[in-house]
Amino acid sequence: MTTLGRKVVILGTGLIGGSLAAAGRAAGLFDHVVGVGRSRENLEAALAAGIIDELSQRPADALEGADLVIVAAPADACTMLLGVAAEHTDANCVLTDVASVKVPVCEEAVRLDVADRFVGAHPMAGSTRSGAAAADASLFAGRTTVLTPLLTTAESARSLVRRMWEAVGAHTLELDADVHDALVARASHLPQMVAFCLSALAERSSDRDRLRALVASGFIDTTRLAGSDPAMWRAIARLNCEYIVAAMDELSELWTELRAAIAGADESALDRIMKDARSFRRDIES
Amino acid sequence: MTTLGRKVVILGTGLIGGSLAAAGRAAGLFDHVVGVGRSRENLEAALAAGIIDELSQRPADALEGADLVIVAAPADACTMLLGVAAEHTDANCVLTDVASVKVPVCEEAVRLDVADRFVGAHPMAGSTRSGAAAADASLFAGRTTVLTPLLTTAESARSLVRRMWEAVGAHTLELDADVHDALVARASHLPQMVAFCLSALAERSSDRDRLRALVASGFIDTTRLAGSDPAMWRAIARLNCEYIVAAMDELSELWTELRAAIAGADESALDRIMKDARSFRRDIES
Repeated sequence: MTTLGRKVVILGTGLIGGSLAAAGRAAGLFDHVVGVGRSRENLEAALAAGIIDELSQRPADALEGADLVIVAAPADACTMLLGVAAEHTDANCVLTDVASVKVPVCEEAVRLDVADRFVGAHPMAGSTRSGAAAADASLFAGRTTVLTPLLTTAESARSLVRRMWEAVGAHTLELDADVHDALVARASHLPQMVAFCLSALAERSSDRDRLRALVASGFIDTTRLAGSDPAMWRAIARLNCEYIVAAMDELSELWTELRAAIAGADESALDRIMKDARSFRRDIES
Repeated sequence: MTTLGRKVVILGTGLIGGSLAAAGRAAGLFDHVVGVGRSRENLEAALAAGIIDELSQRPADALEGADLVIVAAPADACTMLLGVAAEHTDANCVLTDVASVKVPVCEEAVRLDVADRFVGAHPMAGSTRSGAAAADASLFAGRTTVLTPLLTTAESARSLVRRMWEAVGAHTLELDADVHDALVARASHLPQMVAFCLSALAERSSDRDRLRALVASGFIDTTRLAGSDPAMWRAIARLNCEYIVAAMDELSELWTELRAAIAGADESALDRIMKDARSFRRDIES
C-alpha cells in the first residue's frame, strides 16, 4: 500500500490519536508522523513507544508542509483546533478529526472554507484508559468509523480518509453529520445519561449504604459508564444538546409505557417490551 | 464444623440450589442432600457432579424426615413449594428459600403457620447460565445474602440459616422483607427495567439497522440485562409491582432533572448529577 502522505500531523496524541498513529504505522500508512499536544510527558511517551517520529508543542510550525492533519482532541476542542489546522496548512492538505459530535465541527469546516478538504470521522471505539500510554494499534479493528463528508468535499479527500480507517481495520459508514449526531444520541449518549441517573439515584437515596451492600453484577454493568469523565460529558451534552434531549424524551415515553404495564399487571404489554429488548440485544451479541 | 442436619432437601436444583449444594458440601455442612426437581436430566447432572446424594421427583417422599429444606425455585414458585415443604415436614425442620422478592414468601410462611421455623433468604449472586450443570461452589463467596426472618422466627432457625450462608462465603444482612423488596427494586429491578427500555427503544427505531452498526461497548454494557429470561421478570414484576413502580417514578424524577439541565445548558445542575453518579460508582468499585 502506498502511504497516505509524507507528513502526517496528529493534533492530540491521546488514546484515539495515539492508537490511530500506532495502527497507521503498523499498516504502513504514514511516512513521518508529528505528534502535537499540550502534555510534553504524553508526547514523549508516544515518541518512546515509536508511534510518532517527532513531537511538537508548536502547532503552527508542526503543521507546515503537512499532507494530512488528524485532529484527535476532546470534542469541544476539535472546532478550535480545526481552525488552527486550516490556517497553517495549504489547499492540498486533507483535514480530518475524531470528534464524537459531528455537526459543530462540520459547520466550522464550512465557516473556515475548508469543506472541500475536510472529512469528519468518528471511530466507535474507546477505552476507560486514556493517554498515549494506552494507545492500542488494534483499537479500531472490526469497529465502525462513521465518516461525515460534506457535499462539497473533494472525492480525493473522502477516499483518503476512508482508506486510512479501512487500513486500520475499521468498517466505514458515511452519514450526514446530523444523522450521525441523532444516532449517537441514542446509541451512546442515552446509555450514558441512564448510567448517570441510576448511579446518582442510589447515591442520593436515604438507604444509600444498604443499597451499596445489595448491588450485584446487574447494577454494576448497567452503571459502568457512570464513572466517565465529567468534562467530556459536559462538552458532549452541550454540543449535542438537541438530539440528546430528543432521545431522552423517546426513552421517557417507553418508560411510561413500561410503568403502566407493570402497575396494571398487563403481561402482554410487558412481554412486547421484553421481546423487543431481547431481539435487539440478541442482534448486537451476534 | 458440625453439619447443619443429617438430611437436607433442596427443592429446585438449578443454578442457585445446585451452587448452594456444591458450596455446602465443600464446607462440610451437609450429611445427605436430596435434590428434587421437575427435570430428571438436571437432577441426574447434579447427582453425577456429586453435589447431591440422591434425587427425587416426589417431593412428599423426599421431604420425610428432613432437617432442613431449601426452596430454590424461581420466585413465583417459591410460595407454592413452601406450602409443600410445610405440609410434609415436622415442627423441627427448618425451612428457607432463595426468592428474589421476599414479602410474598414471608406472608405465605405466616399463613402456613411455619413462621417460627422459616427464614427467607436472598443471595445477591447469579449468572447468565442456568441449571445444575452451571453450579459453582464459589458463587456466593464475598457476596451478600439478605436474610428476612420474621419476628416470631426461632433463634435456632435464624442462626442455622445464617451459619449456612456464612459457611459458603457470603456476608449476611438481616432486613425486614419489605425493606429488602424496596431495596432490590432499586438495586436490581430498576437496572433491569432500564436495560429493557434502552434495548427495546433501539429495536423500535426507524433507524434500527444503523443504530445496530453504531452501538459500542457503552450501549452493550448498559443493556446486558436486556437478554434476561422474560418468564422470570414477568414474575418479579408481578411479585414486587409496588416497589418497582415507586423506584421507576424516582428515576423519572431524576431523569426530568437531568433533561432540564441539558436542555437549559445548566452545567452546575449537570455537574451535581455527574458528581453523585461518580461517587456511588467509585464506592461500588472499591
